[in-house]
Amino acid sequence: MQFDSLDDIREFCRDLPGGDTGAAEAALRRQQVLTKPPGSLGRLEELAIWLAHWQAREIPALDRVTVAVFAGNHGVTARGVSAYPQAVTGQMVTNFVAGGAAINQLAGLAGADLRVVPIELERPTRDFTVAAAMDIDEFLNAVDIGYRTVPPDGDLVAVGEMGIGNTTTAAVLCAAVLGGGAAHWAGRGTGVDDAGLARKRAAIEATLDLHRAILGDPLTIAAALGGRELAGIAGAVLAARRHRIPVLLDGFVATAAVVPFARLDIAILDHCRAGHVSAEFAHRELLRQLGLKPLLDLGMRLGEASGAGVAILLLRAALACHMRMATFAEAGVSGVDP
Amino acid sequence: MQFDSLDDIREFCRDLPGGDTGAAEAALRRQQVLTKPPGSLGRLEELAIWLAHWQAREIPALDRVTVAVFAGNHGVTARGVSAYPQAVTGQMVTNFVAGGAAINQLAGLAGADLRVVPIELERPTRDFTVAAAMDIDEFLNAVDIGYRTVPPDGDLVAVGEMGIGNTTTAAVLCAAVLGGGAAHWAGRGTGVDDAGLARKRAAIEATLDLHRAILGDPLTIAAALGGRELAGIAGAVLAARRHRIPVLLDGFVATAAVVPFARLDIAILDHCRAGHVSAEFAHRELLRQLGLKPLLDLGMRLGEASGAGVAILLLRAALACHMRMATFAEAGVSGVDP
Repeated sequence: MQFDSLDDIREFCRDLPGGDTGAAEAALRRQQVLTKPPGSLGRLEELAIWLAHWQAREIPALDRVTVAVFAGNHGVTARGVSAYPQAVTGQMVTNFVAGGAAINQLAGLAGADLRVVPIELERPTRDFTVAAAMDIDEFLNAVDIGYRTVPPDGDLVAVGEMGIGNTTTAAVLCAAVLGGGAAHWAGRGTGVDDAGLARKRAAIEATLDLHRAILGDPLTIAAALGGRELAGIAGAVLAARRHRIPVLLDGFVATAAVVPFARLDIAILDHCRAGHVSAEFAHRELLRQLGLKPLLDLGMRLGEASGAGVAILLLRAALACHMRMATFAEAGVSGVDP
Repeated sequence: MQFDSLDDIREFCRDLPGGDTGAAEAALRRQQVLTKPPGSLGRLEELAIWLAHWQAREIPALDRVTVAVFAGNHGVTARGVSAYPQAVTGQMVTNFVAGGAAINQLAGLAGADLRVVPIELERPTRDFTVAAAMDIDEFLNAVDIGYRTVPPDGDLVAVGEMGIGNTTTAAVLCAAVLGGGAAHWAGRGTGVDDAGLARKRAAIEATLDLHRAILGDPLTIAAALGGRELAGIAGAVLAARRHRIPVLLDGFVATAAVVPFARLDIAILDHCRAGHVSAEFAHRELLRQLGLKPLLDLGMRLGEASGAGVAILLLRAALACHMRMATFAEAGVSGVDP
């Protein structure tokens, strides 16, 4: 195990690995001499420089791209918080393995290696309206599974999830760490109706009330009010930071998975970009609070890393320009009028 | 020539070819049974259905994608409205042909055929602060060149431009057709300084004043206050409509090129999507007035079809999901909880 205790994680977050400032500066200088008005590629320039910073090279690569989709089951589904039955989590994992889901098509298009990581689907977390979802060992185990999913020599990792009921878990985590209450964070998820939304909000409020003694401790929250797939995502983000690999976060649940860690040190997000902003309204608010500006805003709300998967295409666009454009000198193009 | 007179164009715009409603409905039905909550792929679903509508088939294709970049020179550069000298238009065309520009990399990544179409670079339009930029024959000739750029059997066309000074032309066209004045439409383009921006606005106001007699006639505006590359873009959009080929518009200039035609019939935009919204602030306002919701918002302001080129990647993502995802029945995944 990379982390034998919550204190091990806290220690890691106290001294987070940094990127390579020199490589970022070299990449910026390169952008300034390519045949375009400086800055005119907008975020494509920023993304190329961000990749250079974390990969520690002026010209980064996207040869080894991993899309990691973690799956877990949630005891809180007993409260009728989702439009779909819990069995769909496992059925969708089967669909991922068979190649039939959206993320299969998107990862294929993006030239990414898809890793599907179900974490103890047969053992849902406990219903956090009445008990801790996971004990510390269960949590650390899921973090470890996520950590080991990241190839140390990878160029990029995109993280996402599948888990019926997990927008309730994400809302609980946000409310517990950031405040704001159930109405602030609970939306319709996969499409729950009005009665389901009311049950979802009631479950969140009951959970916050039951667990109020731990609300000052982000990592204890991540265990007691989290989910295995969210812990897996957090482990993958920590591993990527250890290996200085840039990360694309997917939607509301994937972003919420990192919230307890961002509470320890907001710099944990420096190697992360938000692939998109979801139609789940709480995601926009969460990104705002975390200072993350999403790359895409396409009204997607599927999860399974689908938004991050599409965003990989933008990184490829950024890299193609950064790598292969001619400079003003090479192309014999005049600069700004003197 | 497809259009021998402005009246020929007016006639075309009075009876615009439509898409295939049946194909769109079939595509929508398909989206409803793929393994995801209905609507959860957001705009990717809308894009797949839009492609199906114009290509007249439930499962559209993106095998023959053209990126057309039109280039032209502008007499108004004599007014000191740009940060770059006029010679850069031709130098960048050389760069396009040599493969060194951003659009070369982006079109290559998107699997598109890049067509670079310089239109009489050696003959800039006349300075519209003192005369008509083009007479009707010159305008119709440029429209025809654009029209003939579109392969009748194409699956998609993305249109963009290169032309030092042409954000001034675009601003003049918007102000002349939509009102609002120079301050409403003139921004910094490739990066003009404060003094240049003041000259740009003065040139636009002088132009509107000189040509006030024609301001009620959109197509006469398109000739007298336009540019050859803008006329080329309009011709390509008309040809695509004739052949029922969907179109991605690039930035402010490429969108402004269609404004006079949209004034004749706003339905001319039905087969078009805005690939992105540019950092040039007038583009956001223009898209708002035209009712176009951009696919990307990445702070790009390069032109040369670069934003539309990136947006092709989103269409490929939409199509990959639409074509290859499993249905609920095929994958044995349960539907919404009864």
